[in-house]
Amino acid sequence: MTVRPDILRLRREVCDLHADLVRWGLVTWTSGNISARVPGTDLMVIKPSGVGYDDLTPESMVVTDLAGGVVEGAHSPSSDTAAHAYVYREMPHVGGVVHTHSPYATAWAARGEPIPCAITAMADEFGADIPVGPFALIGGDDIGRGIVATLTGHRSPAVLMRAHGVFTIGGTARAAVKAAVMCEDVARTVHLARVHGPVEPLPAEHIDALYDRYQNVYGQRAADREKEGTDS
Amino acid sequence: MTVRPDILRLRREVCDLHADLVRWGLVTWTSGNISARVPGTDLMVIKPSGVGYDDLTPESMVVTDLAGGVVEGAHSPSSDTAAHAYVYREMPHVGGVVHTHSPYATAWAARGEPIPCAITAMADEFGADIPVGPFALIGGDDIGRGIVATLTGHRSPAVLMRAHGVFTIGGTARAAVKAAVMCEDVARTVHLARVHGPVEPLPAEHIDALYDRYQNVYGQRAADREKEGTDS
Amino acid sequence: MTVRPDILRLRREVCDLHADLVRWGLVTWTSGNISARVPGTDLMVIKPSGVGYDDLTPESMVVTDLAGGVVEGAHSPSSDTAAHAYVYREMPHVGGVVHTHSPYATAWAARGEPIPCAITAMADEFGADIPVGPFALIGGDDIGRGIVATLTGHRSPAVLMRAHGVFTIGGTARAAVKAAVMCEDVARTVHLARVHGPVEPLPAEHIDALYDRYQNVYGQRAADREKEGTDS
Amino acid sequence: MTVRPDILRLRREVCDLHADLVRWGLVTWTSGNISARVPGTDLMVIKPSGVGYDDLTPESMVVTDLAGGVVEGAHSPSSDTAAHAYVYREMPHVGGVVHTHSPYATAWAARGEPIPCAITAMADEFGADIPVGPFALIGGDDIGRGIVATLTGHRSPAVLMRAHGVFTIGGTARAAVKAAVMCEDVARTVHLARVHGPVEPLPAEHIDALYDRYQNVYGQRAADREKEGTDS
Repeated sequence: MTVRPDILRLRREVCDLHADLVRWGLVTWTSGNISARVPGTDLMVIKPSGVGYDDLTPESMVVTDLAGGVVEGAHSPSSDTAAHAYVYREMPHVGGVVHTHSPYATAWAARGEPIPCAITAMADEFGADIPVGPFALIGGDDIGRGIVATLTGHRSPAVLMRAHGVFTIGGTARAAVKAAVMCEDVARTVHLARVHGPVEPLPAEHIDALYDRYQNVYGQRAADREKEGTDS
Repeated sequence: MTVRPDILRLRREVCDLHADLVRWGLVTWTSGNISARVPGTDLMVIKPSGVGYDDLTPESMVVTDLAGGVVEGAHSPSSDTAAHAYVYREMPHVGGVVHTHSPYATAWAARGEPIPCAITAMADEFGADIPVGPFALIGGDDIGRGIVATLTGHRSPAVLMRAHGVFTIGGTARAAVKAAVMCEDVARTVHLARVHGPVEPLPAEHIDALYDRYQNVYGQRAADREKEGTDS
Repeated sequence: MTVRPDILRLRREVCDLHADLVRWGLVTWTSGNISARVPGTDLMVIKPSGVGYDDLTPESMVVTDLAGGVVEGAHSPSSDTAAHAYVYREMPHVGGVVHTHSPYATAWAARGEPIPCAITAMADEFGADIPVGPFALIGGDDIGRGIVATLTGHRSPAVLMRAHGVFTIGGTARAAVKAAVMCEDVARTVHLARVHGPVEPLPAEHIDALYDRYQNVYGQRAADREKEGTDS
Repeated sequence: MTVRPDILRLRREVCDLHADLVRWGLVTWTSGNISARVPGTDLMVIKPSGVGYDDLTPESMVVTDLAGGVVEGAHSPSSDTAAHAYVYREMPHVGGVVHTHSPYATAWAARGEPIPCAITAMADEFGADIPVGPFALIGGDDIGRGIVATLTGHRSPAVLMRAHGVFTIGGTARAAVKAAVMCEDVARTVHLARVHGPVEPLPAEHIDALYDRYQNVYGQRAADREKEGTDS
């Protein structure tokens, strides 16, 4: 096993981020997974397949090339590796990918219905409705192709893959995790809101104003960049 | 008390697995229970009756024969012992049985409605709708008979016993726990999905493809077998 | 302060049982409370008013007489003291009382609708529908009178006080806590079940059979009695 | 950095109170924030922007003036600082402000519907319906103006800002946190209640009686005042 410092760091980062999926209620048993691109290479670090969240260690993470072939690691990579790899091949600005079956978001996916952008937190993070991608079977490039086709040119970093679950993308794995957490949060709030009456989407000009401000003003910019290991 | 190493190991395994029922929100107070067959014998290890999950120890587990008679243990076995024992008698490939009243799955059971196979995670794990078994009173073989009659020849390792709760089976106790956890997960997601509109079941050919792949490809096969103590 | 061993023991027991209200999600902020009768006396031990669950200690519990007057304790007793005291005065077999605003049960209370006995777990514990008591203002004997009038001659140890919340009774404080936990559990399951269709109550003869068995057969009888400090 | 004892104390208090937002399920990722007025000054202590709840320390809290300008602190203050500051400028009796996107309350806000005062816990804490404030964009005084316009002369310490979330006020930061916690609690209970039928608001005279009693009788008055650091 090579001991490149950047890969060692990403093994730990990807491993640790899975705790956020558990903490925010996005995953059940071994159902969700996170990956990160190794910057400047054609490699990625991804969760091993079928391993429980309590048993994950930096060492158990798997390094693959962007065709999904294992480069380092004693375990098989996530069964969703092909989808992650496809996204990195086709979307060079993406540094992290997350997949979950979080319950409220997957409920929208089961109906094949986009989540309307009806609350300000959603305008902030997603800047639009959260779109629905096609139904696709696991095992080839179909899921990856569906993700890329749906998110290309879209503000939303999250896609609801029909009858399946959520994929999110980000400049870093941490940003993709945040998008997955916020996707479930807004999926739940809008679900609850509609139980007792219609919910109006926000007007487009308000969505634009909120999205622009949040993406460009919010947070501790310098600190965030350092913390998230953003290379751009 | 005999000190057979296989029984000692199963006492610990069955005891520890109850923590997963708590962790994934499947049980309330003392309402769920797990058992494991002692491989190659007519014995099983099962939760004691009416003992809280925090108070379980390997020593408090009860060993019974497959008629439900206590062989080892200072406590009474679970009040559901007869149902577990019936399943082991009639289904020789079953190595573990789990019973819960997990809320979303029990809600489907209360209506007597199968959970339609509408999301890919459900096709993966269950390969079909999760079926409803008959209403049966506790105290004899009626519950066990209903479980066996419903699951025989069915892909699903889970049955919704009408107006009662969930029973799941597996090659090992751990596999049956996983089925119970996933049953509640898909029961919740499909429940939520239908709140805001109809949900279509997946086409049969997609269910077949997903089920076949998941059962034969997913996970760390060798590692899993070792971990779960599968004997087959 | 007197140092009667039975009171010291009950101070600890009542204090510790509040952790179950938190654990099972029955309380928010300081909204629920537990009391226990001091056996053979006209005294009870009850939660202090307005103190958070993390800050409770055996010493902070309040001892009152059955008119609600403070006998021992530096804090004011729960604002629901009058209701607890009334129950002990009028129902000599009751050794513990619990009050919560647990969300699903309080939702039924807000509609003033009894929870139909539609699942076996409910037949086991409650043996009947969970009834609705009258609307009553805090501050006198009205709440206590409503509890006693509703539960006298009723199998259910739980009553849904209209537009208010849940009161449960038991032979011990622990039994009353169990009833409160199970009340919320069945309130949630039946609520969820009815979201997608009608739910039939169980036939009366099945309820009778389940209730009789559960009350007389289930659990580790001797161990339970010792643990719960039952005096009867 | 000045080392005024009152500011040091409030840095710790505001920092620690954020744990209650997490504990009671009111926040996701970094979405909620708390502030406290520094008594007798034109200063307030507020959460830093975009910092996770696990990473908060007393030192990371930000001190601003009531125009929102940073006086002490290495981080940027919460992006909601202008709204907090406006409230302190216009409502001199307010010592603490809390903002969340708690899911059930935000669902009511998304529909723009007040929460009817239908249960006694709500009459106790809010003394009225929880009102809806106007839609307002972040970035100026519009949100603050909407909060103040809605809550002035209203008993409720909580306002549902349309399509956005909850703001609560209190004599202290702790009191505002309590109002935020109770707001979500009653938002959930009344939401659940209405799923299966209409819910009647309590009659005005009952609301008045409950509110008056709770505000003036409940709890350990002296202890509370000391604990909450109330200056009035």
